[in-house]
Amino acid sequence: MSINFLPKKFLGCESEFKEAECVIFGAPFDGTTTFRPGTRFAPQTMRVESIGLETYSPYFDMDIEEYKVCDNGDLDLPFGAVNSALDMIKKEAKLIFDSNKKPIMIGGEHLVSLPVIEEAHKKYKDLCIIHFDAHTDLREHYLGEKLSHSSVMKRVWDFVGDDRIYQFGIRSGTKEEFYWAKDGHTYLNKFNFNTLDEIVEKLKDKPIYLSIDLDVLDPSIMSGTGTTEAGGVSFNELIEAIKLVSNLNIIGADVVELSPHYDNSGVSTAVACKVLREVLCAVLNDK
Amino acid sequence: MSINFLPKKFLGCESEFKEAECVIFGAPFDGTTTFRPGTRFAPQTMRVESIGLETYSPYFDMDIEEYKVCDNGDLDLPFGAVNSALDMIKKEAKLIFDSNKKPIMIGGEHLVSLPVIEEAHKKYKDLCIIHFDAHTDLREHYLGEKLSHSSVMKRVWDFVGDDRIYQFGIRSGTKEEFYWAKDGHTYLNKFNFNTLDEIVEKLKDKPIYLSIDLDVLDPSIMSGTGTTEAGGVSFNELIEAIKLVSNLNIIGADVVELSPHYDNSGVSTAVACKVLREVLCAVLNDK
Amino acid sequence: MSINFLPKKFLGCESEFKEAECVIFGAPFDGTTTFRPGTRFAPQTMRVESIGLETYSPYFDMDIEEYKVCDNGDLDLPFGAVNSALDMIKKEAKLIFDSNKKPIMIGGEHLVSLPVIEEAHKKYKDLCIIHFDAHTDLREHYLGEKLSHSSVMKRVWDFVGDDRIYQFGIRSGTKEEFYWAKDGHTYLNKFNFNTLDEIVEKLKDKPIYLSIDLDVLDPSIMSGTGTTEAGGVSFNELIEAIKLVSNLNIIGADVVELSPHYDNSGVSTAVACKVLREVLCAVLNDK
Amino acid sequence: MSINFLPKKFLGCESEFKEAECVIFGAPFDGTTTFRPGTRFAPQTMRVESIGLETYSPYFDMDIEEYKVCDNGDLDLPFGAVNSALDMIKKEAKLIFDSNKKPIMIGGEHLVSLPVIEEAHKKYKDLCIIHFDAHTDLREHYLGEKLSHSSVMKRVWDFVGDDRIYQFGIRSGTKEEFYWAKDGHTYLNKFNFNTLDEIVEKLKDKPIYLSIDLDVLDPSIMSGTGTTEAGGVSFNELIEAIKLVSNLNIIGADVVELSPHYDNSGVSTAVACKVLREVLCAVLNDK
Amino acid sequence: MSINFLPKKFLGCESEFKEAECVIFGAPFDGTTTFRPGTRFAPQTMRVESIGLETYSPYFDMDIEEYKVCDNGDLDLPFGAVNSALDMIKKEAKLIFDSNKKPIMIGGEHLVSLPVIEEAHKKYKDLCIIHFDAHTDLREHYLGEKLSHSSVMKRVWDFVGDDRIYQFGIRSGTKEEFYWAKDGHTYLNKFNFNTLDEIVEKLKDKPIYLSIDLDVLDPSIMSGTGTTEAGGVSFNELIEAIKLVSNLNIIGADVVELSPHYDNSGVSTAVACKVLREVLCAVLNDK
Amino acid sequence: MSINFLPKKFLGCESEFKEAECVIFGAPFDGTTTFRPGTRFAPQTMRVESIGLETYSPYFDMDIEEYKVCDNGDLDLPFGAVNSALDMIKKEAKLIFDSNKKPIMIGGEHLVSLPVIEEAHKKYKDLCIIHFDAHTDLREHYLGEKLSHSSVMKRVWDFVGDDRIYQFGIRSGTKEEFYWAKDGHTYLNKFNFNTLDEIVEKLKDKPIYLSIDLDVLDPSIMSGTGTTEAGGVSFNELIEAIKLVSNLNIIGADVVELSPHYDNSGVSTAVACKVLREVLCAVLNDK
Repeated sequence: MSINFLPKKFLGCESEFKEAECVIFGAPFDGTTTFRPGTRFAPQTMRVESIGLETYSPYFDMDIEEYKVCDNGDLDLPFGAVNSALDMIKKEAKLIFDSNKKPIMIGGEHLVSLPVIEEAHKKYKDLCIIHFDAHTDLREHYLGEKLSHSSVMKRVWDFVGDDRIYQFGIRSGTKEEFYWAKDGHTYLNKFNFNTLDEIVEKLKDKPIYLSIDLDVLDPSIMSGTGTTEAGGVSFNELIEAIKLVSNLNIIGADVVELSPHYDNSGVSTAVACKVLREVLCAVLNDK
Repeated sequence: MSINFLPKKFLGCESEFKEAECVIFGAPFDGTTTFRPGTRFAPQTMRVESIGLETYSPYFDMDIEEYKVCDNGDLDLPFGAVNSALDMIKKEAKLIFDSNKKPIMIGGEHLVSLPVIEEAHKKYKDLCIIHFDAHTDLREHYLGEKLSHSSVMKRVWDFVGDDRIYQFGIRSGTKEEFYWAKDGHTYLNKFNFNTLDEIVEKLKDKPIYLSIDLDVLDPSIMSGTGTTEAGGVSFNELIEAIKLVSNLNIIGADVVELSPHYDNSGVSTAVACKVLREVLCAVLNDK
Repeated sequence: MSINFLPKKFLGCESEFKEAECVIFGAPFDGTTTFRPGTRFAPQTMRVESIGLETYSPYFDMDIEEYKVCDNGDLDLPFGAVNSALDMIKKEAKLIFDSNKKPIMIGGEHLVSLPVIEEAHKKYKDLCIIHFDAHTDLREHYLGEKLSHSSVMKRVWDFVGDDRIYQFGIRSGTKEEFYWAKDGHTYLNKFNFNTLDEIVEKLKDKPIYLSIDLDVLDPSIMSGTGTTEAGGVSFNELIEAIKLVSNLNIIGADVVELSPHYDNSGVSTAVACKVLREVLCAVLNDK
Repeated sequence: MSINFLPKKFLGCESEFKEAECVIFGAPFDGTTTFRPGTRFAPQTMRVESIGLETYSPYFDMDIEEYKVCDNGDLDLPFGAVNSALDMIKKEAKLIFDSNKKPIMIGGEHLVSLPVIEEAHKKYKDLCIIHFDAHTDLREHYLGEKLSHSSVMKRVWDFVGDDRIYQFGIRSGTKEEFYWAKDGHTYLNKFNFNTLDEIVEKLKDKPIYLSIDLDVLDPSIMSGTGTTEAGGVSFNELIEAIKLVSNLNIIGADVVELSPHYDNSGVSTAVACKVLREVLCAVLNDK
Repeated sequence: MSINFLPKKFLGCESEFKEAECVIFGAPFDGTTTFRPGTRFAPQTMRVESIGLETYSPYFDMDIEEYKVCDNGDLDLPFGAVNSALDMIKKEAKLIFDSNKKPIMIGGEHLVSLPVIEEAHKKYKDLCIIHFDAHTDLREHYLGEKLSHSSVMKRVWDFVGDDRIYQFGIRSGTKEEFYWAKDGHTYLNKFNFNTLDEIVEKLKDKPIYLSIDLDVLDPSIMSGTGTTEAGGVSFNELIEAIKLVSNLNIIGADVVELSPHYDNSGVSTAVACKVLREVLCAVLNDK
Repeated sequence: MSINFLPKKFLGCESEFKEAECVIFGAPFDGTTTFRPGTRFAPQTMRVESIGLETYSPYFDMDIEEYKVCDNGDLDLPFGAVNSALDMIKKEAKLIFDSNKKPIMIGGEHLVSLPVIEEAHKKYKDLCIIHFDAHTDLREHYLGEKLSHSSVMKRVWDFVGDDRIYQFGIRSGTKEEFYWAKDGHTYLNKFNFNTLDEIVEKLKDKPIYLSIDLDVLDPSIMSGTGTTEAGGVSFNELIEAIKLVSNLNIIGADVVELSPHYDNSGVSTAVACKVLREVLCAVLNDK
């Protein structure tokens, strides 16, 4: 809260790994970002800017400081080497799951979700994924690559299969992607969260991984991201959605795609920090 | 979609003039702009930035690439010469109407709508105009000039008369303008699109010209325009309005008043491109 | 309305003090601002930028030019000396109240509201305060200081006591502040204006001071303020709230916390000017 | 010097017209600007920002406040009408020359120099022009127009002829322009002021009009102008040049082409204000 | 020169490959950039912004339009795959050298110079490299990678050996790099071009590859690059250096490391375009 | 050097207080800043951005990592309370001097130099001050206050008297200030460092305090400061000056007036970090 203090930890997340229930870590990787790069700067920028935030959430009536959360810092990912980077993230996720803790990852581009979900799926065979995004992320490959931020949910589908991925807020993709989803491979709610309550009802006994691509938010408050898409949800709609999901058994989560260098006004970063605080509440609250 | 490609045409509009159903052209003119100039840069900036957009619209479930649209480039308008500029635009509009195609113009300032509507009115005697804007644009003259972006709808009224102009989203003007409209000269729906469905019902047999001044949008997503007015409609509300209008027989349209140099974050330009894509869908869908 | 004119007065507020019903003045003070300073530049920037605004409000159907408002300029506040600055503001407020006029102050940081409310309370013993803000502003002290922008409403409570302060739009504060309010000391409506109509009904015979911290607005249109908090109200919601309050007997008001140097796009300043115009309408309308 | 004061006059130029030796006026016109418009905002922005400047020049050891300078405000130029605008400027210049005062004009685009030089030439038949600029400004016409910021010195040559125009700092133009100058029509010193001392020596008995296009400065300190050209002179080199010219009989001067909206950091505007202060010193000193 | 024209070619470089003496191509790769990414956007941005530049260089008294230059567009480099990207660049360079033309590459990060110099060295066994840069670029590896923008000249040294690399303007590196150079492996002129004339004299019979990392320029005019280093050379000093080098037999050249998204004012891009124009003159002039 | 690392210490300054020769500390105070506030953010921003800098200085051929420097963090200064803030700085300075170490302070506004110089003067009776600045800082009071950034050197003079203060680079002040200096109270070298070598010669047996207001630099590389003044020295000129002063017995130093929020491009902060590195070299080198 003082300006004389540069935080090494995200907002009030000062517990040791051992005692923690949740473990935050950063995955500063943007190696497949084709358009506006720079999500690699997100985790550290968010830690610094989390100073401006209170530890108390009036949305959840919870104070982060009363919970055990560890901020494990950032992975030191090999630059430009997609496979090794994904391997290191996988190892970190495995460590956390094996310790019976819940990982909360700060991206990085969306591809970093893949290894965490893989590990989650190893532990929870009936894992379902709730995915908030502007984009379908269902390409088979993008610019020739199978491992891309644009194909991450397709890669997840490769091992979870049909009826496991629930997508909300989607408003951009190719015709093929939308039609492939409609063929029953994923549940895709265009534009908003209108049917989220039904899905939450349906998934109430499942282990849930929550993946939030911040571009699900409208560019009016999230201009600092790789690819902005007009017509997104408002911050309050996103919070309401997170509160709905908090009724489920969330076993891991991520907040990805903040690109701080495109955030001239600082608003996007402040929004991202608050989204992460509410995700923390949703996970900690979850039991 | 590749970053190695500088588009000469707007998003997927690659047809020849001859075969096209719709013809896009740019009118890079801002000669009467009093406050923040620069709408002259809009058409070319929108072409470049349309790279970031998919050709598929999930709003209309239509893919632009499956239609015949020609992007005829920009008019080479004489600089600072209002009358000659308007004449050249008129000629282009006449050419398109005479070829039984539909013009879709990218402004420039709002005054560029005048010559296109004049030509439309010559061809369609019962033409009605649907006008989305923050401003009334009903001044008799502005800073001594009768031909001004602030008087464009008054100039249109000069030849179409009462009961032909339907204005939505209006939230700024002089008392005189609002009262003149209220006297029955135009239909003026303040602030939003609340009565648009009734108007669409009423106009269902009329030829419609759709003129969208982008400042109808809230400055939170459209800061890159000449005169921002707080309290505008959201992107989603505008899309809903365009979908409503798509039920009518749109014979021409324009999207005006993007001023790219005031768009620091790039969000306004991205919004403008998507608005144009949806307008294209609305016009192509229209039959 | 001409670009050749640098206004000394806010938008159409050209009356002499003697004849005025309302008196605008600026309190360019930001001496306790801990995070992003610069609200001291707000009053003069707002005067300059009010050129871009019409004097007619379509929300109230009122034209400012038809009323008697005096813009008394800015106080020449001693720099860095909190107590003397507050004293000078108090004196100005007393002068205005003693002349049976209504003060409308442009901040400056929120602490400047304190001396005006003190004077208002001297004149109107049953004064109630309607407070729009993102923050509770109910700290007992902040970084060791009792006189702080973060404690202004606690300081007001010190002399008005329980049941006098009505807070709306609040979405940030410590757990202690929220619980202290909940204990009945202030009326605190989180996030929005949902219960404002009931409160207006309840307060209809009371003298009202209206204090608007602009950060009650969402950062999407109000990035130019000291501490942005995601999830604010929209401009239209704020206007609706002001219209509701206009049914009460407003005896003074302020609009505070614009920080123009953080307003890259100019949108925040334009919004602040329009909010002030509508507050003027609400006050002038009030009887 | 106080932040509570919005100046109507440029820095310390508070004399009445009648008593003044020099008369400042603004010509907010940018109607022929093809690339980045907005010089119309320069005069008023410079007045506001001149607050940040001392009235004392350590370069000339002179204090502006000890001299009689009138700031006559801005001309209310008809928008978009080149000829009428030029006529109004001409009239203002004539008035000043007829009163035996010296005009110091703030542009606007460079074309505004033309009518002032025309009037100067009427009064001083042996008038010579010293011209600091990045560009030759010697086109016969530009985009079809004879009256253009790119042809202003060619238009001046039309009536003053050979051996009257002395150009310094020039680093951009067509091959034709450079060769036409080299044919003896103007004296053109490329890139810098290297031979200015010789020219000052040569012109010491002539009446001099000094025209400074601010883009003569390097873009590192003058990014806020219509067309930046790398490789310009430094601020100190420009001041040295102005001091050299101050040894001549300067009968009028202008400072043109500041475009404040492209000046994100405020540096260009601060530079322009200081250049104008030094030009004032040079003119007042001149006798 | 018209604003209605989006160039596909860099400034006046309109010749066919077959007839061209020089071939420009873009290498939009920034895959090893650790700090501020985005040089991949440089080639296309420079083409668009080259509109603002004249084809005539007053520095060389040459007009680009009078020469045969082909702009061969950008390579479609595989994203994130360093080795394949370098291979494609190598192939393009080979094609150009085999056709007895001279390549002029627009980066991209500095690593893209490596394959072109390799091909140059295959053709010209006594090839010398003149290298303008802020950084030594002599690391053995950087963050574990041998192929990095920070090690490019070390990789070049691997095959050209001692006495072939001449570095100027260098002002940042590790102690090890500076001392390794001093041991006689490269010729390293710190900070400026002071000894360039001697080196030019010494190399006058050698084939020369000229590699310009734009961060050799001072950040005051080149803020739009990956890693700015205060204390760089001025634009005029760089031009003088290029003119000196133009006396040599330049067989290929590159201009790298512009990062347009960090160039808020547009000055860096304008500077880069002019540097490329002068490099073209230096190469075309060279015989 | 890794992006995964948020430094708590300035560049390579990792020693413990006990073992250190120099002690860096931050004084984040801007309470008397009248124009553009925000220097309070400088120390922490500089620590973060010092990541981008090498520890090796090619100017001094010294590597910071080979010396014992402690970064003692920032003082937790009471907000808005000038006297207490100055007292705390004084105490920190005393502690450092009493431990026979040398303080190197990062401002904050220039007033923070006062208490450090007071303590230095207590220890070194014949202390001389070398002061690099754009401004005289010799006002008796400023806006009514004796303790102001604009009067700091006058306050120093109050206890050191004539012939102790040596000012360089000065280019702005009131006529009174310049004439007061000229009367022999301080040595004032306008605009540049032209006579610095003579002064260094003269002061070679004196203990020296070096105070660098970063606005001595030209705004082209130092736009991020409270009050920019065109015509400053270049970075290279400043480095040369620091190298000259390094021949003296520097017993303490400061670098003040960086205002990071006005540094859009990041260049000013990068410059400030490098200046601090060179100051460290000058002090460490000094014996």
